[in-house]
Amino acid sequence: MAIKTDPGNYFEDFALGQVLVHATPRTASQGDRALYQALYGSRFALQSDDGFARSLGLPESPLDDMLVFHLVFGKTVPDISVNAIANLGYAEGIFGVPLYPGDSVTATSQVIGLKESSAGDSGIVYVRTRGANQRGEEILRYVRWVLVRKRDKASPAPEPVVPQLAKPVPVEQLRLPAGLCFEGYDDGLAGSPHRFGDYVVGERIDHADGMTIEEAEHMLATRLYQNTAKVHFNRQAESQGRFGRRIVYGGHVISLARALSCNGLANACKVLALNGGSHTAPTFAGDTLYAWSEVLETHALPGRQDAGILRLRTVALKDRAAEGFPDRGKDGKRDPAVVLDLDYSVSMPR
Amino acid sequence: MAIKTDPGNYFEDFALGQVLVHATPRTASQGDRALYQALYGSRFALQSDDGFARSLGLPESPLDDMLVFHLVFGKTVPDISVNAIANLGYAEGIFGVPLYPGDSVTATSQVIGLKESSAGDSGIVYVRTRGANQRGEEILRYVRWVLVRKRDKASPAPEPVVPQLAKPVPVEQLRLPAGLCFEGYDDGLAGSPHRFGDYVVGERIDHADGMTIEEAEHMLATRLYQNTAKVHFNRQAESQGRFGRRIVYGGHVISLARALSCNGLANACKVLALNGGSHTAPTFAGDTLYAWSEVLETHALPGRQDAGILRLRTVALKDRAAEGFPDRGKDGKRDPAVVLDLDYSVSMPR
Amino acid sequence: MAIKTDPGNYFEDFALGQVLVHATPRTASQGDRALYQALYGSRFALQSDDGFARSLGLPESPLDDMLVFHLVFGKTVPDISVNAIANLGYAEGIFGVPLYPGDSVTATSQVIGLKESSAGDSGIVYVRTRGANQRGEEILRYVRWVLVRKRDKASPAPEPVVPQLAKPVPVEQLRLPAGLCFEGYDDGLAGSPHRFGDYVVGERIDHADGMTIEEAEHMLATRLYQNTAKVHFNRQAESQGRFGRRIVYGGHVISLARALSCNGLANACKVLALNGGSHTAPTFAGDTLYAWSEVLETHALPGRQDAGILRLRTVALKDRAAEGFPDRGKDGKRDPAVVLDLDYSVSMPR
Repeated sequence: MAIKTDPGNYFEDFALGQVLVHATPRTASQGDRALYQALYGSRFALQSDDGFARSLGLPESPLDDMLVFHLVFGKTVPDISVNAIANLGYAEGIFGVPLYPGDSVTATSQVIGLKESSAGDSGIVYVRTRGANQRGEEILRYVRWVLVRKRDKASPAPEPVVPQLAKPVPVEQLRLPAGLCFEGYDDGLAGSPHRFGDYVVGERIDHADGMTIEEAEHMLATRLYQNTAKVHFNRQAESQGRFGRRIVYGGHVISLARALSCNGLANACKVLALNGGSHTAPTFAGDTLYAWSEVLETHALPGRQDAGILRLRTVALKDRAAEGFPDRGKDGKRDPAVVLDLDYSVSMPR
Repeated sequence: MAIKTDPGNYFEDFALGQVLVHATPRTASQGDRALYQALYGSRFALQSDDGFARSLGLPESPLDDMLVFHLVFGKTVPDISVNAIANLGYAEGIFGVPLYPGDSVTATSQVIGLKESSAGDSGIVYVRTRGANQRGEEILRYVRWVLVRKRDKASPAPEPVVPQLAKPVPVEQLRLPAGLCFEGYDDGLAGSPHRFGDYVVGERIDHADGMTIEEAEHMLATRLYQNTAKVHFNRQAESQGRFGRRIVYGGHVISLARALSCNGLANACKVLALNGGSHTAPTFAGDTLYAWSEVLETHALPGRQDAGILRLRTVALKDRAAEGFPDRGKDGKRDPAVVLDLDYSVSMPR
Repeated sequence: MAIKTDPGNYFEDFALGQVLVHATPRTASQGDRALYQALYGSRFALQSDDGFARSLGLPESPLDDMLVFHLVFGKTVPDISVNAIANLGYAEGIFGVPLYPGDSVTATSQVIGLKESSAGDSGIVYVRTRGANQRGEEILRYVRWVLVRKRDKASPAPEPVVPQLAKPVPVEQLRLPAGLCFEGYDDGLAGSPHRFGDYVVGERIDHADGMTIEEAEHMLATRLYQNTAKVHFNRQAESQGRFGRRIVYGGHVISLARALSCNGLANACKVLALNGGSHTAPTFAGDTLYAWSEVLETHALPGRQDAGILRLRTVALKDRAAEGFPDRGKDGKRDPAVVLDLDYSVSMPR
């Protein structure tokens, strides 16, 4: 009689090159769109309105890019990170074909790196995850690395392999969705007159608004993504844990920061790449999040007059307004209010 | 390098006759219906069931009228009231064609009145807002007036213009949706035997139930409507604000009161007009809302035997049951428990 | 002028054989699926993905069985239990044709038993409730009995009639949905390698995870089901009530326990019967729920090689992990942490 409960994988369960086919395919729907809207209040017109999406050449309004990320990410948790100590980083995230209501999401991951910690009780697992729709078309791929506990400290350490990861994703790898064209783009409906050419490298934008997180909200979100990480849901266990309370899923912070960024970046309507990101401090219910962004690079899209690419850095803060752009100090230390430092690339009408 | 964050309009930014095309078109869906249901628990059969709607001549179940109001209202906030001190009133609200899942909502407003305050630091802006679907058909129009801060007290005052507003909306302006006919109306499925002829002018109805509001609920709702008013979301800023905490969006109170009114007015299944309304006191998370209604007028619908119109007043109370119908005292002062006094017209089967 | 507010039925309002046609038909949708997902985090692949459902012969992914239960149950509350003191039990629950997004739910109940309490101030009402879709096909039937207040203690007691109820539902009455076949069942996508033959009678499974309930969550759920029972919503009234606070709808606990059971029972993908169940203690916001299950019986399905039936008992606990399977002690008393003891039957691939 085998134990039926899935304990998840520990560090020694991973092998270089191993492919994990994640469970729980999931059909996305207008219900997910509405909930995502209610959770974050996003106002990017492309993801809000079918008519707006059609005016830009898409068949209907695609689901939010970060929702795609969360759906794919959630599937990986039971296999990759249910025994994780920390989520260490992301890289080489590229969004593929858009996800529409009615499409289904599946995910697989390949182990591309392993490195035991010097203490010998845990190790870093690097995986490249690919999300696909029901036609097998890639909707997203990204690399993530996670510090995972060992089941048995005595297990032998694997040969350390640390993958070389591009940062940022090379511009030539970025793909605008087929058919998407910004020629008829309506600034008024999008809510901002500021287009690609108005943004300059080094420019910083204070997204002004603040949003307080409630326990019910981050748990609703995290369950919507079928993310099973225990630390988000169990008040009783976490009261004895590292922080004394439930921790907000880092992706919830990403989505809140992205939604806040609409005020200042309303035309950054399609995320193309996730170049990197760090959850630099934990976020808890009751925290009020603010965000600011910095333009890191601007790129023309070869052969196109309608669209450009901005590489952005969006920094989320808790309980401190974005005025003054709190960041690293002269000593190199981050301002303690920073909870997220996200490096990503978006397309914007020229 | 222009500032990219939208500061919103201040009093001196409005001009009489000015038309504002609001941003963020939004396709409504079954997801919005489900969330609205979860947020308010409404039980009007027409908005709950496709089969019931078809039995009355509509192609499917329309979305709740107040959801239509919130979707249109939300679009106006960044342009009209993000710098508002207070939402002062509504008038001349008329619901047009029903909104169905899959339809898109857009909104425009025209400035129809301006009046600087005597202190010279703010002024009242009157706008007539029109919501339309993707075919340009009017789904709702209403007038709202708001007290808006001035950016610069030294800005010259405009010529004061205060529009004459009809109260209530004249009955001959009210339109039942095309095709809607109550002949086959099923009282049992609707949950009440009381039809138009059973209600008399002056009658008061205690809606009996109470519903407590949580922070997560009103924020989910307000974000669903893409309403960006800061006071609803930011615990940190509001802890220094007028009330020391987040304020519940007044429309959330309207929807809760309307849902509570189902117990006593279950056949008041289609709102036709918003004659006026005042949010007489702020509502906060933790407050328990109750409601009572008064029949102000009854009208036969010319040429129709199946439907009548009730003009109703629904009063919402916080932390006090509706027993005894708390209202204005002999001194003319409102009972302090009153938070909403809404004047609207509904159609009901005869 | 009749009182318009519905006071609900009291014990003396029920008559043996009486049929109640419940109000508020309700079209279910993808929005309900998404909300159910967000509320419970369920990961049964059949209810998550259209492609997975099609691979098993269904036209698309059906809505969760417990969502069907809640939608039907909710309709009965205003007629059956709005004046209830306690929900005493369930029996003879049988799920019929699956419910799909776009289907509508209606419900009727017949009174099959009545027994006044010895104190004469209340009585037990037994009803058999049937839920149907828009084609009149039965989606669920079950018996429930409830202790209901009398309006007037002096009302004469009815002849006591207590129905004989089968426990468990006889296996030959259980129906797999037409077309459902587990031959192509994909364990990997479902998230568990454990099939029917791996479970043995007497086996106990610790579902490991814990989930804390928030006020906003259980109220969103209960309103979604149009359940009007006052005790779930009114903080003010309940602060003076039996427990000093709002009580979580028992069905919310059932759904949470079922979702938690996915870890250990991921292939128990279709609930066929509700054999019985007791809410043994009230659950409140802030409680953390855990669950364990016991295999009570295993049955081959006559004439089929692809599917078997497990009769399960799932026990939900509050604020105590399932380790050690807290249950009745030697003295016959339940562990005080137990809040739900549910007896149900599921189909599972062989």
